[in-house]
Amino acid sequence: MIVRDLDHARNSSRRVDSDGWNSVRLLLKNDGMGFSFHITTIYAGAELPMHYRNHLESVYCVAGTGSIEDRASGTVHAIGPGVLYALDKNDPHVLRADTDMTMACVFNPPLNGKEVHDVSGAYPLIAEAVSQ
Amino acid sequence: MIVRDLDHARNSSRRVDSDGWNSVRLLLKNDGMGFSFHITTIYAGAELPMHYRNHLESVYCVAGTGSIEDRASGTVHAIGPGVLYALDKNDPHVLRADTDMTMACVFNPPLNGKEVHDVSGAYPLIAEAVSQ
Repeated sequence: MIVRDLDHARNSSRRVDSDGWNSVRLLLKNDGMGFSFHITTIYAGAELPMHYRNHLESVYCVAGTGSIEDRASGTVHAIGPGVLYALDKNDPHVLRADTDMTMACVFNPPLNGKEVHDVSGAYPLIAEAVSQ
Repeated sequence: MIVRDLDHARNSSRRVDSDGWNSVRLLLKNDGMGFSFHITTIYAGAELPMHYRNHLESVYCVAGTGSIEDRASGTVHAIGPGVLYALDKNDPHVLRADTDMTMACVFNPPLNGKEVHDVSGAYPLIAEAVSQ
């Protein structure tokens, strides 16, 4: 059984900071769950074009408000607490935060913790395990 | 892209009620994500022995307090907002709720929505897809 605490993890190497967001990876590939689980904060005012070509991702909004634009259709969906979106078709999208947003994110396949967004807004597939 | 709202889903067949808890399945097997994602409420005072022999599960506490007992070791871990536990070894456990607890749960393989706990506290593996 694995037990981890967000407050502790956000002060460890599990936290990744980037432009407009940070993400705390509570579960990664080497935990052997077959998915990774992250608590991600999107900062108020952020506008993030993303396209995960190699991963399916679901995102559940715990707190905050914003929107997601489906770039294929142009449809914009409001996001608030209790809303989930799932990129079941590797959907290119733009995430916009009206306030700071706290999101519970699941990736399949799991991230190993070393990925960074490439220029297309994707995470590459990387096979190496990350150290704990 | 799938977009779903907890408030809507909890008034649909996505909600399952049982003794001491209810669970709203926002993503199920037929969504094709490779995992299922549920928002589960454990009622204050509940004491739930569980053993998922066929599934790996991670549980992230969004709200409320309680504890989880690892039945193999007898260790009890406090649960509160920001705590995640992952049953990476199909760990038999007892979940206890001091207050109502809101939990974001991920199952691998995904549930199809028709499972009920068997007498051992496990979900059986069922191949059939659930209708939306």
